[in-house]
Amino acid sequence: MDEAAVIERFFRHLGAVRTDVVLGIGDDAALLRPPPGFDLAMTTDSLVEGVHFLPGNPPRSLGHRALAVNLSDLAAMGATPAWALLSLTLPSIDTDWLGEFAIGLGLLAREHGVALAGGNLSRGPLNLTLQMTGVVPAGAAMRRSGAHAGDEVWVSGTLGDAARGRLVSGTGDDPQSTWLRERFEYPLPRVALGAALRGVATACIDISDGLLADLPRLAAASGCGAVLDVDALPVSNALAASLRREPRHEPWELALLGGEDYELCFTAPAAAAPALADVGARCGVTLTRCGSLRATGGLELRRAGGVIQFSQSPFGHFQP
Amino acid sequence: MDEAAVIERFFRHLGAVRTDVVLGIGDDAALLRPPPGFDLAMTTDSLVEGVHFLPGNPPRSLGHRALAVNLSDLAAMGATPAWALLSLTLPSIDTDWLGEFAIGLGLLAREHGVALAGGNLSRGPLNLTLQMTGVVPAGAAMRRSGAHAGDEVWVSGTLGDAARGRLVSGTGDDPQSTWLRERFEYPLPRVALGAALRGVATACIDISDGLLADLPRLAAASGCGAVLDVDALPVSNALAASLRREPRHEPWELALLGGEDYELCFTAPAAAAPALADVGARCGVTLTRCGSLRATGGLELRRAGGVIQFSQSPFGHFQP
Repeated sequence: MDEAAVIERFFRHLGAVRTDVVLGIGDDAALLRPPPGFDLAMTTDSLVEGVHFLPGNPPRSLGHRALAVNLSDLAAMGATPAWALLSLTLPSIDTDWLGEFAIGLGLLAREHGVALAGGNLSRGPLNLTLQMTGVVPAGAAMRRSGAHAGDEVWVSGTLGDAARGRLVSGTGDDPQSTWLRERFEYPLPRVALGAALRGVATACIDISDGLLADLPRLAAASGCGAVLDVDALPVSNALAASLRREPRHEPWELALLGGEDYELCFTAPAAAAPALADVGARCGVTLTRCGSLRATGGLELRRAGGVIQFSQSPFGHFQP
Repeated sequence: MDEAAVIERFFRHLGAVRTDVVLGIGDDAALLRPPPGFDLAMTTDSLVEGVHFLPGNPPRSLGHRALAVNLSDLAAMGATPAWALLSLTLPSIDTDWLGEFAIGLGLLAREHGVALAGGNLSRGPLNLTLQMTGVVPAGAAMRRSGAHAGDEVWVSGTLGDAARGRLVSGTGDDPQSTWLRERFEYPLPRVALGAALRGVATACIDISDGLLADLPRLAAASGCGAVLDVDALPVSNALAASLRREPRHEPWELALLGGEDYELCFTAPAAAAPALADVGARCGVTLTRCGSLRATGGLELRRAGGVIQFSQSPFGHFQP
């Protein structure tokens, strides 16, 4: 099976059908018609074997995650997803693998109305790179840099589940382990929440590397520091139960350090709390207040009313 | 040096400054403001070590080529390049390598007014994936599918140089070898020509895999077959001289089979010849008529007035 046949069989009809796709897969470039009055939000992210996933991870999950990580970036901007391009580097053509990968990617794409407009296929060490474009009313996108000292810090959903799910991957088929594993393998990007936060949140970032890494990025971009109450971090019952059985970490440690939950961390003035309650209810997402920004730089962690030190480094690709 | 430091040092100020970049590198996604009345042309292409380049290829050339192959796709649509996203997967941080890579990418980006609006950096086997967006007046893009039986087939520049330049890479510093090697290492995508062909050419494709592979793609997309006069294929003096010294191939064979020249192959009715002469003169590119399309499918090669058979397969990533 050559490249053209792979594209025809697995990818041509994968995503959503959109009328703004003037010309999709099959030419030198795709042609897209942007809606007037909107800005484009563009992002790209890669999944690399041995770094973001292991050889044993199910290909359906990889297809899902390759898109999910990019959708999460758009969610953090408050943008609505539209068109994706896929750059797939494969060591060989494995039709079983491709079929599962395409299902994972296609289901999530159609759920979010995303058209797979183009891409390319190369031979080489497995590398899954997806580029995603969304649209947002001109000037209305959220940024990391829009927060002010005094704004409160909020997070969506629960944190630490994916980090735990990655660890229990392949082990344990009790309902809690299964749920945690799904949080890692099939993260649900907060696309509707991101759009609903426009005009309410002052700044937003998605939690991909863990709150300990991502909150300081938002704070620094806004010229602020942050105070985080680790007791307030939202932890799922499944994570708490799973850690009770194997207490190497406290739940709040995983909530702080664990990446790949793809929840949103955002800021808003205290007066926005009622509006946020409404946003959370409309989107069906629990929103939890867990800190605030201040003029002094850095990140201060508080627990049981006192300041704590936490020495573990967040994830970095090139950290020694 | 961590990811943020690499991006800051090598990539933040790499490309052209454009007023339509509302928000560039550093947030969850870039924000771009598309011009009203234009379609977007989007493409992505990867360079993989061992497939598209060898460990000894200069990193400056890789930076150039990673962008050039994408610009060439936009040229084939007649689109004007605007914004690029770079997904770089690196085994380690080598600042010498990164510096040279960034120079190659940056020079070509600024030459074409391309802003590097975002991207990502991962650890893993070397993989250079670039995504490129251009703009084209709504409905005016060229496609592979626009040709009709009877249209003449044209190519820009000379063909086969890059294939020969890849072979002589690292050997010979005579002017001819140097020129051929530069055609491989620093291909110049035909961006201005592509834009000038809008409204004149009926269909267009860039020659990345060799004319023997790419012309049939254009013909098939247009529901036609093609007749190609291999004697008419444009061959550089440097290629002819290089092959005289080492006559394993005839020049026309390399012109037919050799990929990575990133010239354009396009079609136009015979009546367009004067307009094409004008386009070629304005763009400073030699345009050569070398065949025609016909209703009968397939590709017929003619030489010295007769039909010839040519059995070598064009390049394919997953061919056995």
